[in-house]
Amino acid sequence: LLRSAAFCTLRRVTFTESAFLKLVQARVARTPAVSGVRVGVGDDAAVLDAEGQRVVVTTDMLLDGVDVRLAECGHERAGRKALGRCLSDIAAMGVEPWCAFVSVALPGGTRPADAEALLDGLFGMARDHGCTIAGGDTKRAAAGLVIDVAMLGRADASARGPVLRSGASAGDAICVTGRLGGAAAGRHLDFVPRVSEGLRLNRRVGVSAMIDLSDGLSTDLHRLCEASGVGAAIEAARVPISEAALSLAKQDGRGALEHALDDGEDYELLFTLPAERAEGLGADPELARLVSRIGTCTPREQGVVLLAADGTARPLEARGFEHRFGARGGA
Amino acid sequence: LLRSAAFCTLRRVTFTESAFLKLVQARVARTPAVSGVRVGVGDDAAVLDAEGQRVVVTTDMLLDGVDVRLAECGHERAGRKALGRCLSDIAAMGVEPWCAFVSVALPGGTRPADAEALLDGLFGMARDHGCTIAGGDTKRAAAGLVIDVAMLGRADASARGPVLRSGASAGDAICVTGRLGGAAAGRHLDFVPRVSEGLRLNRRVGVSAMIDLSDGLSTDLHRLCEASGVGAAIEAARVPISEAALSLAKQDGRGALEHALDDGEDYELLFTLPAERAEGLGADPELARLVSRIGTCTPREQGVVLLAADGTARPLEARGFEHRFGARGGA
Repeated sequence: LLRSAAFCTLRRVTFTESAFLKLVQARVARTPAVSGVRVGVGDDAAVLDAEGQRVVVTTDMLLDGVDVRLAECGHERAGRKALGRCLSDIAAMGVEPWCAFVSVALPGGTRPADAEALLDGLFGMARDHGCTIAGGDTKRAAAGLVIDVAMLGRADASARGPVLRSGASAGDAICVTGRLGGAAAGRHLDFVPRVSEGLRLNRRVGVSAMIDLSDGLSTDLHRLCEASGVGAAIEAARVPISEAALSLAKQDGRGALEHALDDGEDYELLFTLPAERAEGLGADPELARLVSRIGTCTPREQGVVLLAADGTARPLEARGFEHRFGARGGA
Repeated sequence: LLRSAAFCTLRRVTFTESAFLKLVQARVARTPAVSGVRVGVGDDAAVLDAEGQRVVVTTDMLLDGVDVRLAECGHERAGRKALGRCLSDIAAMGVEPWCAFVSVALPGGTRPADAEALLDGLFGMARDHGCTIAGGDTKRAAAGLVIDVAMLGRADASARGPVLRSGASAGDAICVTGRLGGAAAGRHLDFVPRVSEGLRLNRRVGVSAMIDLSDGLSTDLHRLCEASGVGAAIEAARVPISEAALSLAKQDGRGALEHALDDGEDYELLFTLPAERAEGLGADPELARLVSRIGTCTPREQGVVLLAADGTARPLEARGFEHRFGARGGA
């Protein structure tokens, strides 16, 4: 058996865990050092110096066939998306990205060029946002590619601490960054996580609650409201609708607003802040350009509602994405 | 479509991400609080207070069909193994487990009872070792179950810091805990990570390098030696051989020693320490019972060798487990 494997290796590429690790180590070696990372890739665990820091941890799993279609998007974009989603969570906490730990299950037949492209995506996205890859795990996949990223962010004891979902009060303004809906047409692979915006909103503006829009505005707004114990009144006319949502609406007959409310994978920030501070957003030209005020927090018992242009209100239901595990009865 | 789904739900169980999250939250609610975890499950990220701490991070991915056969071992043991492997890494750093972040991809057809069993395994193993589950991610699997665990450990600034693989010197004694080999027969699912032993070895005894045995003694010893820049002479007669390795050897004609050297998944600790301190191990009755001295570190140029009873040496090759991703030519 061993001999035949050795023989076949001459004709076909055999790609091992340690070959992959060598690719990783070569990249780690040319990545600039990040403060506080004492031991990175190469031991049983990484060692971090967290003195005087508040540490934030998030994790996200990406699967071929569920979150991306690898055959269409390629390995680099899959890697960028996997890391980008954790960066979006760190952005929503309003803290600095620090280091990432990446577990990868590679299917049989993965070529060295695929692995290089995957690492291009992972390391490129990390570098773009000041994050270092400090460890991980590699194995053979049972089926398709799996990438799981655990990411740490940090806030100086002197800076404002992490922003939670739970800090909104009735009367606070509700805002979003960017334009929403239709991410499935491409943006879900090419979004830029709002890391610098999240930091600015926390440090300079001061926001009361924040969440990133991964499962659709309607769903993530409900999460923020539930965590904060508030209701919300969203003005339909103020919801920023993306070009992609407008095109999709023309094709599928669903409204563009519906796409913006329910589509998911926007990776924009939804946040709240005292109304008087919302007016101050205009002082920062970049934020002013990017941020839309879409509504106001209300007392919890008023629920989460959507206000039409004529002022009539209807309940805004959470219709965004939710994973289902059980038998779906063919539905 | 929506109606037919609702209809079928009456007849068949539909199990959603939020149903799974509710199961998780119920368990989190009855888990004792762990110091330093300010925000756990439920926000975009967890928030940890790491003032004055050295933080250690490790990550490990478990796949059905690769690391376990779920149909045979069941969900609870899969959960225990996933968390246990990270605990074994934390043990090898000689620090205290702190908190874990668990990403789970559940295949379609997962029943609520399966999810409960999985959580029994994850939360049970965490609790057994003073670790809390502080976050995670859940989704539908494209194929089989995937569990990825990221785990943080911590060392007080006042305590000895984490033990690396790289601290061994020529002349140091080489020791292992437990008995090796044959883990595939069952122990790979039921091992107890050496968390308390790792802590005692670091704090009370003082070891120079440590690694956990996941890929086989021969492979992991090479890793330790390479990181430390030393060679090693292992005395074959001193390698502790498990009952399982002895039984396997009778069945498959491979030597029991070979099983102990190469099988992998022992999740025991391999460590080095100055020779005079190795003699002091006898003072701790529990460690004395558990630990075997199997050899001595040598200068790097002497390589890694196995000494037979008559004193003849042969190179000890790394023959443990390695994942292969490429085409294997049918081998």
